Amino acid sequence: MNDGKKMYKADVIKQEVLEKLRKLGEKIYRDLSRGEFPELNIPSRTTKNIVYDDKLRQYVLAGKMKERTTKNIRHLRPFAQLLWIASFGKKLIEAAKTSTLRDTYYVAIGEGIDFEDQAESDEMIMELESIIDSPREDFHIFPEERASIYGDLVIEYTVPGFRGKRVDLSSHPDGFAIGPALTTAEFVKCGAEVLFVIEKGAVFSRFVEEGADKKYKALLLHTAGQSPRNARKLIRRLHEELSLPVYVFTDADPYGVHIASVLIHGSALSAHIKGINVPDAIWAGVWASDITRYRLPSMKLNDQDIKRLRELEQDPRYQNDPWRREIKEFWKIKRKAELEAFSRYGLDFIVKEFLPERLAELQKR
Amino acid sequence: MNDGKKMYKADVIKQEVLEKLRKLGEKIYRDLSRGEFPELNIPSRTTKNIVYDDKLRQYVLAGKMKERTTKNIRHLRPFAQLLWIASFGKKLIEAAKTSTLRDTYYVAIGEGIDFEDQAESDEMIMELESIIDSPREDFHIFPEERASIYGDLVIEYTVPGFRGKRVDLSSHPDGFAIGPALTTAEFVKCGAEVLFVIEKGAVFSRFVEEGADKKYKALLLHTAGQSPRNARKLIRRLHEELSLPVYVFTDADPYGVHIASVLIHGSALSAHIKGINVPDAIWAGVWASDITRYRLPSMKLNDQDIKRLRELEQDPRYQNDPWRREIKEFWKIKRKAELEAFSRYGLDFIVKEFLPERLAELQKR
Repeated sequence: MNDGKKMYKADVIKQEVLEKLRKLGEKIYRDLSRGEFPELNIPSRTTKNIVYDDKLRQYVLAGKMKERTTKNIRHLRPFAQLLWIASFGKKLIEAAKTSTLRDTYYVAIGEGIDFEDQAESDEMIMELESIIDSPREDFHIFPEERASIYGDLVIEYTVPGFRGKRVDLSSHPDGFAIGPALTTAEFVKCGAEVLFVIEKGAVFSRFVEEGADKKYKALLLHTAGQSPRNARKLIRRLHEELSLPVYVFTDADPYGVHIASVLIHGSALSAHIKGINVPDAIWAGVWASDITRYRLPSMKLNDQDIKRLRELEQDPRYQNDPWRREIKEFWKIKRKAELEAFSRYGLDFIVKEFLPERLAELQKR
Repeated sequence: MNDGKKMYKADVIKQEVLEKLRKLGEKIYRDLSRGEFPELNIPSRTTKNIVYDDKLRQYVLAGKMKERTTKNIRHLRPFAQLLWIASFGKKLIEAAKTSTLRDTYYVAIGEGIDFEDQAESDEMIMELESIIDSPREDFHIFPEERASIYGDLVIEYTVPGFRGKRVDLSSHPDGFAIGPALTTAEFVKCGAEVLFVIEKGAVFSRFVEEGADKKYKALLLHTAGQSPRNARKLIRRLHEELSLPVYVFTDADPYGVHIASVLIHGSALSAHIKGINVPDAIWAGVWASDITRYRLPSMKLNDQDIKRLRELEQDPRYQNDPWRREIKEFWKIKRKAELEAFSRYGLDFIVKEFLPERLAELQKR
């Protein structure tokens, strides 16, 4: 099990990304050695250049590019910033270290790179993602937030110090934090047949305590609100590599709808990145229509909910059912409910009654 | 290792709390069977009744009590609410299930208990804590938020389904989520000699990647901001049961000072609960004075920071050094910095340079 020479998928990605970064650097050198002003074509990430790709079933960038050239004195600063980010990413990969958006900003400050604030370095990191077409996790810039996972899956680490070691994700019922090590691990052995993605910690605990993992041979993944990007990537990998169907459980409010949708269709903000959404994942509730159907304790939609609901209505991702149907229902009842609301029928109701009903219903379609 | 009859500390606590709840119920029955209106003496939790206890070195309630009697028609509603919470807590313990503040509110709604909103049921839960002098985790109401932990410690679970099973907390470098199972586990074997408590996820990752756990034989605990209560209890247990000295690392801003202080002195909000703070824990930085000393990238204090700083100044917990000294320094420089700011000297600086310097300094005293 502990073969140091073993080649992991993570190693392949590492080589690919290093190669992309090297090519980027070579392009600059080539321009310079020819006596030309270095320039780069950078995908435009403005909202006007974002389209929904029916084939990929996610938001993607349309073809519009912008040119950044060192001929233009106003381009010099972002040009240098971008190259610094690329070289920092390369160093992170080579040193097998990870960083965060915030950390990266501070390292830049320390090295005398002129970033006005973190928003500016974040922007450059996203620009690099779009140029080399790889998510920032692939050049080792990870989210600070941690989702967690529990269930019948053995993983094998690929990070230094743990390379080749394995851990059984059913050995800690409170869940394993999803950080850089888990994100880059390989899946060795999986007894699960489905993945339940859950927005709320209380409901994750409920699923564990009621044995939903055993009853449904399910992995349980707790996103803790909007899912961090590396957790979205992990969900995609679990779906692709292990063929696990994915069911998403969120609150019945416009924000919960959005959380489910981002997992399924991708977000506009990461339209420049492919492969972190799961188009085949199924939004399993709580739906607006469940509020009436299950007589759930509910609250009135507030102004922010209404505003968000209007935005959802305009969005191409919400033009089909169940999305369209449920948005209509929200307008009708003007109320929202939480996943925990099922506890009005006792703590075990959500797993013992709601879950089998919902799964049967979804599988009939 | 898998002795079903084994008596864990968690089992002892369970019996104690059940006994306290039973006594509470018996008192009501006794009043009723004597033909008297049931009444209860409840510790007053108003700010006027909170004092800092120099001996316990935490905030505690002073002696003031309030009487709640069913003679008074206006007391009937909170009286019934409180008894429902007590009976729900008893059911949770007996069924070996856990709940959250929010979940509890919904179960109450479902059972027709008249709570106006969750704030009202939260209040009753805290009232029950103060009456039976046990934190709500002991009657199985846990925080939804999850801190996480990593390091050379083997634990043994006491929760159903996992009772007697063990897990090595050094087997997953991203950290083990601290939920009900870990909170109630026993410590079986510990190779660590110190506990580092860290506010930020990025810095937790930094400590893991730079091997701070091995260099300092340290457990690493990530609070993810203000520490959830069960994590505070766990820190206390690690300190008491394993005699681990505790060092706390927070941002150099008034909020970070408060996070460290709550871990050390307890919070006013939980003055009615004993045993979840660690008076001997040491606040290890980042201090306001570190901003100048290490020339850290810093930001101006905003209005909220200033307001909070004024509050800290009035608070008895901050009258000694390093607190007083550092609050003075904040007034002087009017700036704040984050833990990640050390990354200006490279990602390894915080563990390789800052940490040994700070520990040497603190141990000299």
